[in-house]
Amino acid sequence: MYELLKTEGMAKRGRLTTVHGVIETPVFMNVATAAAVKGGLSAADLKSIRTQVALCNTYHLHVRPGDGVVRDLGGLHRFMQWDGPILTDSGGFQVFSLADLRKIREEGVTFKSHVDGARIFMGPEESMQIQSNLGSTIAMAFDECPSSVAEYDYVKASADRTYRWLVRCRDKMAELNSREDTVNRQQMLFGINQGAIYDDIRIGHAERISELGLDGYAVGGLAVGESHEQMYHILDVTVPHLPKDRPTYLMGVGTPQNILEGVDRGIDFFDCVYPSRNGRHGNLYTGHGTLHIRRAAYERDDRPIEEGCGCPVCRHGYSRAYIRHLLKADEALGLRFCVMHNLWFYNDLMRQIREALDAGEYASFKKNKLDELAMENA
Amino acid sequence: MYELLKTEGMAKRGRLTTVHGVIETPVFMNVATAAAVKGGLSAADLKSIRTQVALCNTYHLHVRPGDGVVRDLGGLHRFMQWDGPILTDSGGFQVFSLADLRKIREEGVTFKSHVDGARIFMGPEESMQIQSNLGSTIAMAFDECPSSVAEYDYVKASADRTYRWLVRCRDKMAELNSREDTVNRQQMLFGINQGAIYDDIRIGHAERISELGLDGYAVGGLAVGESHEQMYHILDVTVPHLPKDRPTYLMGVGTPQNILEGVDRGIDFFDCVYPSRNGRHGNLYTGHGTLHIRRAAYERDDRPIEEGCGCPVCRHGYSRAYIRHLLKADEALGLRFCVMHNLWFYNDLMRQIREALDAGEYASFKKNKLDELAMENA
Repeated sequence: MYELLKTEGMAKRGRLTTVHGVIETPVFMNVATAAAVKGGLSAADLKSIRTQVALCNTYHLHVRPGDGVVRDLGGLHRFMQWDGPILTDSGGFQVFSLADLRKIREEGVTFKSHVDGARIFMGPEESMQIQSNLGSTIAMAFDECPSSVAEYDYVKASADRTYRWLVRCRDKMAELNSREDTVNRQQMLFGINQGAIYDDIRIGHAERISELGLDGYAVGGLAVGESHEQMYHILDVTVPHLPKDRPTYLMGVGTPQNILEGVDRGIDFFDCVYPSRNGRHGNLYTGHGTLHIRRAAYERDDRPIEEGCGCPVCRHGYSRAYIRHLLKADEALGLRFCVMHNLWFYNDLMRQIREALDAGEYASFKKNKLDELAMENA
Repeated sequence: MYELLKTEGMAKRGRLTTVHGVIETPVFMNVATAAAVKGGLSAADLKSIRTQVALCNTYHLHVRPGDGVVRDLGGLHRFMQWDGPILTDSGGFQVFSLADLRKIREEGVTFKSHVDGARIFMGPEESMQIQSNLGSTIAMAFDECPSSVAEYDYVKASADRTYRWLVRCRDKMAELNSREDTVNRQQMLFGINQGAIYDDIRIGHAERISELGLDGYAVGGLAVGESHEQMYHILDVTVPHLPKDRPTYLMGVGTPQNILEGVDRGIDFFDCVYPSRNGRHGNLYTGHGTLHIRRAAYERDDRPIEEGCGCPVCRHGYSRAYIRHLLKADEALGLRFCVMHNLWFYNDLMRQIREALDAGEYASFKKNKLDELAMENA
């Protein structure tokens, strides 16, 4: 299902064929936590900004509207009216970060819902069942994501448990995919490497999970407080121990610079809330640095956010002045435009990365791109 | 410019040709107060819901971003990227209702901005200058809208002053339209009838303003607290004293029922915040009464908001369950979908009204429609 089309150093140019369509990698997944991209983007908007994969959140959808509801309505694809690939994270990250955590046991985790305070238990089997109900294209394994400053012994024990949980996830998914009434019987499973910033735990864990022959492998537990240098170091030591013939996914990362570095270290999949969150705050990506659209300097600026940008907002001719006005006047359209522009920027960056890899020119592309991104916007 | 295509009783089927396109009447204008329809609708969305006329607000745009800014950017059409007709109200209603009003004099009104408290003076000349800067298709005269319970003597004096203001509006617009550097030199002016609920003041005022030979005439000062019966009565006694060969506009009205009654009394133009405001609260119009989408009954309802509805949301297959979820999860997309559906409903109601008038069957159409609208939604 995963075809490695080309390599340049560690960088991979790949193609993952799924039941919901082909994913060209490296790819940036667009975050649609609660089955919608924040800012009011519809499925048609996602097509217009060339989204390849929507990323939905298992924990949020389990709590509201409930994965049983989504299942009864035919799964997430039909619910959202999005026919492309969907990746669901496992809920693990949210359970450990958002929820009022009660207790971690071998079986799983008991916690309180952030919506109504209801007591919820989630373990590997529950997470797989929920993701099966959602019918996503790719399900993520249920893992523990320890703090980047956790002690060695804690991280070691946690990574061991995450491995045992992964085996249970694999077995549970096999059972679910074998059932007649499963929404997506060709659901894929990605395992998640953990180990915080400890090289030997990361490597040992990567080697063990690689033996399971899963559909893809993620590096989790990064971008949670460690430095960029630590993150790049962990990728340098870990990715070589993950199978090259499967897609790799760097979870929750990151800035355009992080992505350029991640690709260079063998990453296929990325996701991050930065483009949508920054967009909602009026901080817009351009090929020459960030443009803060709320600044007074743009009050009468008739130019698009970025000259030559192919996003639907810039192409339609909406001006900086208009978008600034919409944000100042609290008009929802301003948020929508900013999110669309930023997601297009990320999606288009990935297109450029793929083209550079196709041409065997990634090294020089990356250098030039990093220089451009460091510029101050005029 | 206004062609009266057909009549049935007092009801008029008309066509107003403007520099920004043809308006088929009766028409419902879609409210875009601050140069955007609330809920995140773009100009492309307005096309998709068959909006004929966008209605923008002189007072709001004067305060923010400033009509000088809009003028420097080429006018409202270019600012919003909306190429269809735009009507701007005069700011009078907002000055008298929203602003911290200081003083009414013959010259105009001094008040405080609701945004930054700045002291602003607006009279007929200022309102015309602002609307000329905005470059709207149709400008509304600057008027005073007295309370529906104001005393006879006050209303009489106010209507007399509104007449004198109208003459000044007409003269000022003639001057502005004659200038080389005016954004839209073919801007039209609609006068506004006032007189609260006093038949003789309404009639006398209607007769006087009709003599001015303006591009259109509005009935103002209704839907401000009086009963529906009082409103219909005022239309019954006033509209016959307005020229039949010009479009008539019932400002700020109203429910689908109000519109059906207004058409029957000779009204061409309507506008109201109901469809967008109700949409944002999850109260959706259907041919069989209002659907309250947040209700638990719709949790697993796979049907569109209304079966057979041609709006982009229903046509695309988004379900009641999904839209309910979006609203419950505070996703902006839910508001956008609800506003689009409701505005389509109004725009499509007007299409049906025009077709019934074309067919000479308005009386029976109106009766059936009123019966349908009174139904309880299943």
